[in-house]
Amino acid sequence: MNGADRLCDTLLVNDVDVCFANPGTSEMHFVAALDRKPQMRCVLGLFEGVVTGAADGYARMADKPAATLLHCGPGMANALANMHNARRAWTPMINVVGDHATYHLQHDAPLTSDIESLAKPMSHFVRRIASAEDVGPAIEEAYVASLTLPGVTTVILPADCAWNGVEPAELKPVKLPALKSVDATTIRDIAAGLRKHGTRAAIMLTGLALREAPMEMAARACAATGAKIFSQMSNGRVQRGAGRVAMPKIHYPVDKALDQLKDIDYLVLVGAQIPVGFFAYPGKPGRLVHEGCEIVTLARPGDDLPGTVAALTDELGATKTAPAFIAPPRREQPALPTGTLDADKVCSIVSTLLPENCIVCDESVSSGRMFYFDCYSAPQHDYIQLTGGAIGEGIPLAVGAAVACPDRKVIGMQADGSGMYTVQGLWTQARENLDVVTVIFANRTYAILHGEMRAVGVNDFGRNAKLMLNLDEPALDWVSMARGLGVEAARATTAEEFTKLFKGALGRKGPFLIEAVI
Amino acid sequence: MNGADRLCDTLLVNDVDVCFANPGTSEMHFVAALDRKPQMRCVLGLFEGVVTGAADGYARMADKPAATLLHCGPGMANALANMHNARRAWTPMINVVGDHATYHLQHDAPLTSDIESLAKPMSHFVRRIASAEDVGPAIEEAYVASLTLPGVTTVILPADCAWNGVEPAELKPVKLPALKSVDATTIRDIAAGLRKHGTRAAIMLTGLALREAPMEMAARACAATGAKIFSQMSNGRVQRGAGRVAMPKIHYPVDKALDQLKDIDYLVLVGAQIPVGFFAYPGKPGRLVHEGCEIVTLARPGDDLPGTVAALTDELGATKTAPAFIAPPRREQPALPTGTLDADKVCSIVSTLLPENCIVCDESVSSGRMFYFDCYSAPQHDYIQLTGGAIGEGIPLAVGAAVACPDRKVIGMQADGSGMYTVQGLWTQARENLDVVTVIFANRTYAILHGEMRAVGVNDFGRNAKLMLNLDEPALDWVSMARGLGVEAARATTAEEFTKLFKGALGRKGPFLIEAVI
Repeated sequence: MNGADRLCDTLLVNDVDVCFANPGTSEMHFVAALDRKPQMRCVLGLFEGVVTGAADGYARMADKPAATLLHCGPGMANALANMHNARRAWTPMINVVGDHATYHLQHDAPLTSDIESLAKPMSHFVRRIASAEDVGPAIEEAYVASLTLPGVTTVILPADCAWNGVEPAELKPVKLPALKSVDATTIRDIAAGLRKHGTRAAIMLTGLALREAPMEMAARACAATGAKIFSQMSNGRVQRGAGRVAMPKIHYPVDKALDQLKDIDYLVLVGAQIPVGFFAYPGKPGRLVHEGCEIVTLARPGDDLPGTVAALTDELGATKTAPAFIAPPRREQPALPTGTLDADKVCSIVSTLLPENCIVCDESVSSGRMFYFDCYSAPQHDYIQLTGGAIGEGIPLAVGAAVACPDRKVIGMQADGSGMYTVQGLWTQARENLDVVTVIFANRTYAILHGEMRAVGVNDFGRNAKLMLNLDEPALDWVSMARGLGVEAARATTAEEFTKLFKGALGRKGPFLIEAVI
Repeated sequence: MNGADRLCDTLLVNDVDVCFANPGTSEMHFVAALDRKPQMRCVLGLFEGVVTGAADGYARMADKPAATLLHCGPGMANALANMHNARRAWTPMINVVGDHATYHLQHDAPLTSDIESLAKPMSHFVRRIASAEDVGPAIEEAYVASLTLPGVTTVILPADCAWNGVEPAELKPVKLPALKSVDATTIRDIAAGLRKHGTRAAIMLTGLALREAPMEMAARACAATGAKIFSQMSNGRVQRGAGRVAMPKIHYPVDKALDQLKDIDYLVLVGAQIPVGFFAYPGKPGRLVHEGCEIVTLARPGDDLPGTVAALTDELGATKTAPAFIAPPRREQPALPTGTLDADKVCSIVSTLLPENCIVCDESVSSGRMFYFDCYSAPQHDYIQLTGGAIGEGIPLAVGAAVACPDRKVIGMQADGSGMYTVQGLWTQARENLDVVTVIFANRTYAILHGEMRAVGVNDFGRNAKLMLNLDEPALDWVSMARGLGVEAARATTAEEFTKLFKGALGRKGPFLIEAVI
């Protein structure tokens, strides 16, 4: 057996059994080894952004990392944008990047590049494998790091470390260290702070704290103290719907976010970052809380977030208190909109028809900005979204979620400009026959940038601005593109057409795309 | 006026008047400034790999850099693979990467990343702008660096450096330093070496040495001494066709390359790298020349390559010698193949019908490997190709070449697997109505990897290998994809069909795609 076999075996013994891949020549021994392991599910992406975006979606839903197979520095470069999103979502991921044989690097062959320099900004952990015998330890380290940071890990596999022989060995699963818990003093101090600040306090959560049980626990603390609750602006995964906490997230527009947080004097962070503007704007503040707001960190990413929330609520004596903010079920089904389609009508129809237990992948950007706030009372579902602002995450995220949860409907809310970045992911949906409905918000512009241009005082666009912000000449024909990639598709220009198509897509299995012209 | 205006003015005064762009919020002031400069041609790419690939193709043909506009670290990450190819082609390029305002970086907002770490592996020059007044000097430095290294430069533009005011100033073009010339001793020594080794010597060229005049000059030196001539395996641009030097390039398969160079004892590098295997293979050498071969460097990239070749030939007293290796015109038009289509037939038809003065963009990978060797006697044309092995360069390269040379037909020889990486570039061809015929070699596999798998001893593929190396389930429908992106397209399954479609495409203006099913 060789290093590549050891790599596969080490992944498999640790229950990492999905590999999203886009291989090249330097990974041929790795491919050959994967071919000897039918228990590993290999999923091809026709572009590396699909590979890491899918690995991100997979891990968010499976709560364990997938492996990826990437080809040299340029192949990883293509994967970086969605590694960035995964990093911002604290998603466990094990990227395996093939490189030249150790002794070939000196020749500076055409594909040679500084992989470490490329990997570090988008990885929490980077490790170059030194030999075939080093493969096992490197993968074990990456596996542990991916789940305990938690986050994106990158392991560089020189070709000769894959093809050189290793001694057979009996592999055992790695023992994961316990998640860090938070000290009692911090919990006591923060409980006192919440009591003191009452309704002018807020708890802000992200990561594993946004699952049903810890959200409910946090909402008990809120009920006991009067504190508000928020999630970050963007989060890896939120469990939503009637009967769960109606978790508000921080708004993207700076003025709206400032308004949301203007009365908060005491902000408790649970794995979350201090809320800041997505971008800076002349004359507007960077931080979204007021100057006098005290910010305290209850737990950091990598800490036991659910356990810490429970400990805080216990300290407040509120573990039996009825939780605040629980979303009621809809009293009646809202009427479906009719007439010419627009973004809000699409959101409304999707929200109204949302099936129980589905997974929503949201990269609707400006078009779907109210969707999240609209569907807190919908049937229970998981909501996963673009986290790092690196557009081109939506279609791959849906791929990964569908691979992780083959029995659940996946609904992709996809802006058209963003969707173009990783449109290749539709082909993977077709090849794997994934149960994904993709809704394209076809506004044929970078709509968000129209708003941002107005924000910088440009209301009358000239030729160059139009050339850079509009996607209308020629209009993208998503139905043809989807069919070209093997996915059935149709176009809707009225609300009635959209409703019919969306109902039809929910009633069948397999990938389907709806171009909603808005 | 603000820093963004200064940026545009500094580019324009230095005759940089094309900007390939994919903007985001942090570049809105840059977009607004470009909107005030109608003399700047702004070309939108729907993915950043299109942007830098197009800038690469543009500069290879225009012999001056284009600017690019990229959005933050993740936007640049998407651009890196084609920056890598440009770096390997020594292409001048000025990337402008928007970043957060200087004072916003401390907040680690979602899109924040270490842009320098990402940029350095794929840039010869990286510079972060410090203030609005620093914009002009930074762009001037990048411009000079792009043309004197020559190569890829990256300038990081924080949003506040774009929006803050600058004093109006009268801008002048930068004076470019003279290219370095090579000392007389080196030239004399190498002339003596060529004389001594006779037919066991070779001159290997790349970069600007592969234009008609310096190639012919080098071929005079060869005629005088008996030396062979080669280009690198991959080159930014080669001027080809009847009446020019029939420049052979080093073969990709290691055994063929070793055979090509086995009799060479003395190798003279003109801007070229020592020839090495594209990849390492167990038991095969990395260097493609034999152990005893003496390798001497006549000139490095950034030296005056044409001038140095002329000086060498002069030293040999051969400036009037009839050049060796001049390609004769075809005696008669070869017969066009018929019957079921295959890759060789496609190459043969394209080569036979190649129009005078066209530009061939070659990313045909394994399918078109013989094309280059087949068409040395075709009508004169420019040949530009994938240089760094980062696939996904072909479609954007054709975009850039067509923008640079609007009166010349551009023919894209495009492998299907590679084409998928930056398929979005077809839309830019449609929007700009670029005169590009794209020929897709639709073999529906990563054919090169089939060969590489056999090379590592795997002849019988299992399920996982097939899943990772084949693109056939479902088959990519390039005609639908192209139409979805606004490009007219048709499919050929026989040689006759292909000939008819290719002739038709040559006879009209504007983008057209032929899916050649092979």
